Amino acid sequence: MAKSPETEHPNKVFGWGARDKSGVLSPFHFSRRDNGENDVTVKILFCGVCHTDLHTIKNDWGYTYYPVVPGHEIVGIATKVGKNVTKFKEGDRVGVGVIAGSCQSCESCDQDLENYCPQMSFTYNAIASDGTKNYGGYSENIVVDQRFVLRFPENLPSDSGAPLLCAGITVYSPMKYYGMTEAGKHLGVAGLGGLGHVAVKIGKAFGLKVTVISSSSKKEEEAITHLGADSFLVTTDPQKMKAAIGTMDYIIDTISAVHALYPLLGLLKVNGKLIALGLPEKPLELPMFPLVLGRKMVGGSDVGGLKETQEMLDFCAKHNITADIELIKMDEINSAMERLAKSDVRYRFVIDVANSLSPP
Amino acid sequence: MAKSPETEHPNKVFGWGARDKSGVLSPFHFSRRDNGENDVTVKILFCGVCHTDLHTIKNDWGYTYYPVVPGHEIVGIATKVGKNVTKFKEGDRVGVGVIAGSCQSCESCDQDLENYCPQMSFTYNAIASDGTKNYGGYSENIVVDQRFVLRFPENLPSDSGAPLLCAGITVYSPMKYYGMTEAGKHLGVAGLGGLGHVAVKIGKAFGLKVTVISSSSKKEEEAITHLGADSFLVTTDPQKMKAAIGTMDYIIDTISAVHALYPLLGLLKVNGKLIALGLPEKPLELPMFPLVLGRKMVGGSDVGGLKETQEMLDFCAKHNITADIELIKMDEINSAMERLAKSDVRYRFVIDVANSLSPP
Repeated sequence: MAKSPETEHPNKVFGWGARDKSGVLSPFHFSRRDNGENDVTVKILFCGVCHTDLHTIKNDWGYTYYPVVPGHEIVGIATKVGKNVTKFKEGDRVGVGVIAGSCQSCESCDQDLENYCPQMSFTYNAIASDGTKNYGGYSENIVVDQRFVLRFPENLPSDSGAPLLCAGITVYSPMKYYGMTEAGKHLGVAGLGGLGHVAVKIGKAFGLKVTVISSSSKKEEEAITHLGADSFLVTTDPQKMKAAIGTMDYIIDTISAVHALYPLLGLLKVNGKLIALGLPEKPLELPMFPLVLGRKMVGGSDVGGLKETQEMLDFCAKHNITADIELIKMDEINSAMERLAKSDVRYRFVIDVANSLSPP
Repeated sequence: MAKSPETEHPNKVFGWGARDKSGVLSPFHFSRRDNGENDVTVKILFCGVCHTDLHTIKNDWGYTYYPVVPGHEIVGIATKVGKNVTKFKEGDRVGVGVIAGSCQSCESCDQDLENYCPQMSFTYNAIASDGTKNYGGYSENIVVDQRFVLRFPENLPSDSGAPLLCAGITVYSPMKYYGMTEAGKHLGVAGLGGLGHVAVKIGKAFGLKVTVISSSSKKEEEAITHLGADSFLVTTDPQKMKAAIGTMDYIIDTISAVHALYPLLGLLKVNGKLIALGLPEKPLELPMFPLVLGRKMVGGSDVGGLKETQEMLDFCAKHNITADIELIKMDEINSAMERLAKSDVRYRFVIDVANSLSPP
């Protein structure tokens, strides 16, 4: 008989999990493996609340494996390191992001692209190589192979730095891969949520002109005065949309709902690139005339490998880039999820795990 | 009052044109400008029959401006050159492709990307900078600015070389731009018509492994024994499609009808690139999961600039690449168009203009 989440491993852990597609999170006792030779045990200080956490607890994508403990923007302190661990020592401040395991021997892993390894396992809602389930960062601690642990730069705050481990790398990696970092070029950021607001900051750090593209003007002032965007384009204003046709070199499209690509492709210059990061459940409509006649492209990208994630953290530390966050207590998570579902957050909730998670 | 096509210019020309969306071609008298200082007058020897010719005479894209004389795969002899013409002399064998004019001063033109110039004018069904209409190569001669005239390499046959001026550059340019020329990589060519069969040959010349992707096995043997493809994948064979998942680095998608991208994207490896060259009237469905989770991209491309077209001609001459053609007489064009509409051609019709076009 399969063992229960609480008894399958020796390391007893407390966290908050969802049991069914109601998505309601509540206290949950489970267990993790003992710290192995290559492992780092991390006492969790803070954990960001990513839109993926919401999709997963609600089973929006149809592959949630309950019970699930979400959380993949984890910052904490290494409390134990295995004998083969060379990169970290006890007491180090470290991060754990979206990926907790991979085969470490395929073509993707050899190129530091663990994120595209066919055997990659996510930090939660995934099965580890030992056949047991991974639970995420809404919990006391986590045990992770050192390859999937990040050094957290000294000047990066633990709370507002945590979201970089998913939102940061998810926008940084495509900008590097697709060549969207040429200073002076014009970047459009479609959607100003957790990913979008970090994309604005990273875009500015690369020296780009950044325009936020949004369906409402609500966030216009703060996007410019606070986030540093150069301009703001409201998609429901036909005159401004028309004036903006053919003005952008790149677009980072963070919109996760089904949406029209046609107007966005129209904003691109010849050779323009639109990189989509969201996962709408249905296919988008791709009009071929602008693609062909303007040599434009639509590409995708999914987080980033561990080496590049470290590079991104160091880049953000150097440029003082953090996420704008609302710090919450663990027991505020259900109302935070309700607000996140309405995009009512500026711009990322982060759970103060160490100071608010206590067993009942 | 506007002058008639026959009287607006001094240079009287005879050709075959379509008057309405029946698309029926018949003898047509019109005129061209006198040879200007920068112009080359070309006596037309051969003209390829491109699928665009068929779309245009039938007004499939809704912007045909009748009467129209199609033809943009033109090979002929320079019979007159203007005093500023330095690249050509009388008697030279030359080519004229898809583009007959552009502003010559914008960012695209400065980068030898006349094909993306906002004022680019096509060789036919377009308005030239003097406000008169361009007529294509189903005719005795054509007058073109030297920038838009190609040197035709010595060992390239005039008849089977003609289609390279559109089909050749249309597949060569994206392979160069999107980095699809790394020897040993695996190229899929979707659709084996005029573009596809040249893509197979150019792909092999770059040292790629080439697989033809087709909905029917009809052309399998000749694709391999005659065109030099390494393998042939029939999309209606579920077992072979499954076995081919994740095996290709690049796909050149030449299918011009509305079609499913999902199975093609599945054939690509991580970081795979699908370049679409067709112009289906309706948007295609773009599933975002394979794009995002496999960092794949869908790009477009439209012919190529003049400098690159010359490079392509020289490349094809060096590698003995020509189109496979069926040579027809001018008065066989209407039945050829009927066969082209059914893709019943191996693989390009070429009109023997000089030997079969005679005024009634």
